[in-house]
Amino acid sequence: MKLSESFFYTLRENAKDEESTSGNLLVRSGMIKKTSNGVYMIMPMGHRVLKKVENIVREEMDRTGAQELLMPALILEEVYEKSGRREAFGSNMFALKDRYQKNYVLGPTHEELFAVAASMNGASYKSFPYNLYQIQTKYRDETRPRYGLIRVREFIMKDAYSFDTDLEGLHTSYMKMFNAYKACFDRMGLNYKIVKADTGAMGGLLSEEFQAICEIGEDTVVQCEGCDFSSNLEITEVIDTSEVSDEAELAMNEVETPHAKTIDEVAAFFNKTADSFVKTLIYKVDGEFVAFLLKGNRELNETKALKLLQANEIELAAFDDVERITKAAVGFAGPVGLGIKIVMDREVAKMKNFIVGANKTNYHIENVNLKDFKADLVADVACVQAGDVCPCCGKKLVFTKGIEVGNTFKLGTKYAQTMGLNYLDANNKLNPVVMGSYGIGLERCMAAIAEQHNDEHGLIWPKSVAPFQVALVIVSMKDEAQKKAAAELYEQLSAAGFEVLLDDRDERPGVKFKDMDLVGIPCRITLGRKLGEGLVEFKMRDEAEGFDVELSKVIDEVKNRF
Amino acid sequence: MKLSESFFYTLRENAKDEESTSGNLLVRSGMIKKTSNGVYMIMPMGHRVLKKVENIVREEMDRTGAQELLMPALILEEVYEKSGRREAFGSNMFALKDRYQKNYVLGPTHEELFAVAASMNGASYKSFPYNLYQIQTKYRDETRPRYGLIRVREFIMKDAYSFDTDLEGLHTSYMKMFNAYKACFDRMGLNYKIVKADTGAMGGLLSEEFQAICEIGEDTVVQCEGCDFSSNLEITEVIDTSEVSDEAELAMNEVETPHAKTIDEVAAFFNKTADSFVKTLIYKVDGEFVAFLLKGNRELNETKALKLLQANEIELAAFDDVERITKAAVGFAGPVGLGIKIVMDREVAKMKNFIVGANKTNYHIENVNLKDFKADLVADVACVQAGDVCPCCGKKLVFTKGIEVGNTFKLGTKYAQTMGLNYLDANNKLNPVVMGSYGIGLERCMAAIAEQHNDEHGLIWPKSVAPFQVALVIVSMKDEAQKKAAAELYEQLSAAGFEVLLDDRDERPGVKFKDMDLVGIPCRITLGRKLGEGLVEFKMRDEAEGFDVELSKVIDEVKNRF
Repeated sequence: MKLSESFFYTLRENAKDEESTSGNLLVRSGMIKKTSNGVYMIMPMGHRVLKKVENIVREEMDRTGAQELLMPALILEEVYEKSGRREAFGSNMFALKDRYQKNYVLGPTHEELFAVAASMNGASYKSFPYNLYQIQTKYRDETRPRYGLIRVREFIMKDAYSFDTDLEGLHTSYMKMFNAYKACFDRMGLNYKIVKADTGAMGGLLSEEFQAICEIGEDTVVQCEGCDFSSNLEITEVIDTSEVSDEAELAMNEVETPHAKTIDEVAAFFNKTADSFVKTLIYKVDGEFVAFLLKGNRELNETKALKLLQANEIELAAFDDVERITKAAVGFAGPVGLGIKIVMDREVAKMKNFIVGANKTNYHIENVNLKDFKADLVADVACVQAGDVCPCCGKKLVFTKGIEVGNTFKLGTKYAQTMGLNYLDANNKLNPVVMGSYGIGLERCMAAIAEQHNDEHGLIWPKSVAPFQVALVIVSMKDEAQKKAAAELYEQLSAAGFEVLLDDRDERPGVKFKDMDLVGIPCRITLGRKLGEGLVEFKMRDEAEGFDVELSKVIDEVKNRF
Repeated sequence: MKLSESFFYTLRENAKDEESTSGNLLVRSGMIKKTSNGVYMIMPMGHRVLKKVENIVREEMDRTGAQELLMPALILEEVYEKSGRREAFGSNMFALKDRYQKNYVLGPTHEELFAVAASMNGASYKSFPYNLYQIQTKYRDETRPRYGLIRVREFIMKDAYSFDTDLEGLHTSYMKMFNAYKACFDRMGLNYKIVKADTGAMGGLLSEEFQAICEIGEDTVVQCEGCDFSSNLEITEVIDTSEVSDEAELAMNEVETPHAKTIDEVAAFFNKTADSFVKTLIYKVDGEFVAFLLKGNRELNETKALKLLQANEIELAAFDDVERITKAAVGFAGPVGLGIKIVMDREVAKMKNFIVGANKTNYHIENVNLKDFKADLVADVACVQAGDVCPCCGKKLVFTKGIEVGNTFKLGTKYAQTMGLNYLDANNKLNPVVMGSYGIGLERCMAAIAEQHNDEHGLIWPKSVAPFQVALVIVSMKDEAQKKAAAELYEQLSAAGFEVLLDDRDERPGVKFKDMDLVGIPCRITLGRKLGEGLVEFKMRDEAEGFDVELSKVIDEVKNRF
């Protein structure tokens, strides 16, 4: 592509409304442009990258024998009501009415329609297994879209669905997809970890996530420093190695604790460590208020809490609700005499003589024991922390942050049962079909690659997804020899199958170098003053220094590098 | 693809809810499946066709130097308010609110956002011309979706937009697209006509449509039997060759005409031809009632009427409105003493002593003349009819029906002006950018091809868009020699670059032949009894008879045919 004849732009200034490196660089390099909250245009330069990501995914899907199709995004709301997911998605689904007042939603994921599609293939067990996929636009009305293309409201997803007659078949289909996913992310140049995760609103038997390791990742990837255990923080079990304390249970004692509201302040007041306290957190769970009791140094794991209570939505109670329930200022909640459901973390069950809020402003109670209040449920509802014990080997857990770029689910028969997808077995008996579901977010992959591959000058695309492989920079558009040599190289490299960006704009060389660095083309060839000696500068974007190459050997050098 | 290992189905019965041949055959051949009114799944077999159509379009766009990008479908409503099109689209746009009650629409076409995108490229006249396109999903809440994929509510469109500094540049850009469109439709094997059309809600200077000729087409393509004039019915001018009558104007005379309401009945009563009558049609135009006067043998052209009155919506007035306005039963409306706006077709202006309704049940008035009532406007608002005079050469017009598969617009500066897209000319003066807009509906192309290429056995895909080029049918899956030969042919043909469908199902040969005919694979090779003599049957889908070919010469025969 010749820049002088093309649509091309970059921005000098950082984007004001992008909090992530990838978001900022993708905007500045002219790859994307925000149109509304969490909705972007993929501009021509960015579209070239997105297409490469898409092609990698399509190739790997086709290699497994999966068959591509295309579902609508406009789906009757009743489809999700039938599967029981309308409520689970709640306001994350965009909902609308058509001109005849019929209720529709924009599909956030397509398990239901694929189950309907699969029913066309007949019911004989002989017609299994198979795998259907699409590369299609999804809609999710996120509460807080952010980080450029990482959390958006409209995005392209490759979603595949496997159909089998039994769990053994599902496992085979699952592993095919699992391996295809590894091939996809390897080819994209992503540094990623695979972790076990919560099955969430999807339901099912197993969920694994492909997490691209990034500081801004919204998921915490838990790994073991000893074994190959890895898991999403949200489902990692807290291994409680403490013993039940054998100290004698003392009598409760109300203590005035002015100005001490946070655990740290209260600990300082009592001169004890945080794990002598039990904190009482009041949440609203599907509309009901619930108190969670946790050791002072722990945080509530909302995923575990939702699963335990079989609920869809959880949020911290509003301040005025807390004050109404505890009849005290915020910061003094405690289990003694509290009139709402209490869920106690199982670590708390081993504690004795702990300190809690008194449900009375400026007061705490010390020497509280289990007999002093009634917990409705006792379970593991705490988040693991770095340094906790590995559930597999007992060594220590370490944390990194990840962006979920792909996920794989063993769904089992959940959707087949709700959508009525059955097969006839060899004995002519009806059984529900066993499904798997497999997703990759394409824009998110693009963003994760950008997040992992950049420096202070801009993006550094891996060769597999770069918008162009080679940039040809003409230093002076007044120099006919440079222009002629560039035109010849452009033809030769293009003929050899390379995608070449010819920077033949009437701009200063500094502007051109900056732009090519910002856009992140892997290989830059500069035709400048040394052309008189038959030399051009050859520079790889991911190497610090360039070097001179004889004009006649440039093509070979490029071939060597790709 | 081996059918024994794939998702594949066909339906024996005609689809109950498909009124078109293409809709029925696409459903029956397992290419599409309806999910709701005007919304379809594109199933795997259909997706292969759709991808070929898409690839043809993308190749032809890329060949012109147009650059691909991708816009969202979820667009702030205010974007279309800014351009003034929100009202024009009306309830044809799907509208929704996000979780924060912000108003969005699903984009029906993207002139506005492309104008925004183009503004990124800087304002110098030197950065022009360029052309941007996308292949993206559009949403239109049609009143009456119908004919399978021909009129749907969610569909993929290739929409391209050209950006120039002047009309001369626009014409060059326009012709590039125009020629690319011809290449697209030629490659798809479509029989089509190019006609001038109304610019409608798009606005602009010129609109041309690519009409695939089909009986079920919703557009009337007007052509001349003498010259190469062609036009959409909706804009074709009625050439009035009649002279002003020189007969004396007689006095009006009210006549009782019991049981005569329609023009035919009244004509019979008066024993005159329809062109002695003037019919009075009452319409509601953007909420206001308007009477249109037309020669008895003419129909109102609603497009001309809308344009004349600069209105968005037109519909026949309801019966009770007509009765209230005329103070008579429906069928007796006339211009004399009518209290609403009157638009008179210019043919009527030359008539004398004509017959009209009396605005009185069971009465007409004869000998009416222009002096007897007041027309507010006189204009060409009638539809041309077959046999009318060609506006170019005076020969006769003939009609065919067409499906609009593509359109091209010279938009001019309309969108640049409303969206603020300007450029700086050589004198540093700001001017609005000159745009063109070019659309192709991909599913509609697929449907139009199916509508033109079929017979009583099913679809007959042109080679360029067929889901597979070759079907290999094994007559008996119990015959090892047949299976072995088929497996070898499958490998050889695949290696030679052909897409091969191997029908290795355990089904009767009749079922297999029927399925391959229904799906419409261009070339079928059958391995049956004659394999012992080294022969296979070779049959092209679009030829009546097959013939035997030596096994060793099959690959050459296939190559010859493609």
